[in-house]
Amino acid sequence: MAPPPTSTISPIIITLVLKILMLVLLLASLVVLATDTATLSLSFYTTFVESKIHFDDVYTYRYVLASIIMGLVYSVLQTALSLYHIATGKRLIIGDGAFLVDFYGDKVISYVLATGSAAGFGATKDLKALADVTNVDDLDDYFDKAYASASLLLFAFICAAILSVFSSYALPKMVNSSSTQNPA
Amino acid sequence: MAPPPTSTISPIIITLVLKILMLVLLLASLVVLATDTATLSLSFYTTFVESKIHFDDVYTYRYVLASIIMGLVYSVLQTALSLYHIATGKRLIIGDGAFLVDFYGDKVISYVLATGSAAGFGATKDLKALADVTNVDDLDDYFDKAYASASLLLFAFICAAILSVFSSYALPKMVNSSSTQNPA
Repeated sequence: MAPPPTSTISPIIITLVLKILMLVLLLASLVVLATDTATLSLSFYTTFVESKIHFDDVYTYRYVLASIIMGLVYSVLQTALSLYHIATGKRLIIGDGAFLVDFYGDKVISYVLATGSAAGFGATKDLKALADVTNVDDLDDYFDKAYASASLLLFAFICAAILSVFSSYALPKMVNSSSTQNPA
Repeated sequence: MAPPPTSTISPIIITLVLKILMLVLLLASLVVLATDTATLSLSFYTTFVESKIHFDDVYTYRYVLASIIMGLVYSVLQTALSLYHIATGKRLIIGDGAFLVDFYGDKVISYVLATGSAAGFGATKDLKALADVTNVDDLDDYFDKAYASASLLLFAFICAAILSVFSSYALPKMVNSSSTQNPA
């Protein structure tokens, strides 16, 4: 079956949409995580103490934040490169470099987002279970927001993984692709 | 510069070594995780209670186990396919299917192992910090073994990620590679 006539332009648009979607999801994930606070009420006999908990009181959420920021920086750069490409009709990075930057960049960033999301889900699941056992109800919303942030990060990862498949399929377009290692 | 004369055979050997290394690391990670137990001594006034803790008492470690098992099944299959290829000189999966199985298989498994390891590290870091705060020393070894398992899984992930780069570079060898989508 012949490829559709728009096959040369549509992949650029598809990847641009994915990059923008990833950017929006990462921004949402960042806002949800950064604003995640809780007030813990502790009572020692007749004394009540209120303790404010921020997202960075859970060590894992610091890694989640770091992965979101890395993803944000990358997707802003990638979106800018795509817009430049569409506006001017040429790439800012010329030669095979563009394909390699996309290929390794998408690959590394998709791993960063996957690990950020997984670490967030894992830590939240077990800390929430522990809070439930010890009847600390004040933290329910706190952990639910952490789940929401990790979920948004998961969707951003899916965008990155699809982009990574695209940039892998683009490797044959490299000028010097015959010099690449072909296992088997 | 001309490629070295062994360039047609060495990638098969390199990928086989990586597959076997990944298999060994996953087996080690499985053994360390599955044998991870602790005895928690709790005292209620004059009564002492001992509670046995297994790896699956932490929810996240169940996901870590699942990711290790998925990785093991995949690397056993991949090692068998490589050995068959080397022994008989031909592939069991013929045509473009072999390249696609390697490409998507390596990609998915590398994400599974990355998330398993990240979830393990995240949950362990925060649960251990919580155990330290509440002076539960009995769990130190338990969490250290969980770290060891997650570390072995991380190294297995690195093998999977390198294999994934190899199988991406092999995509241009597909017979019908001209019909693949090339973004940009």
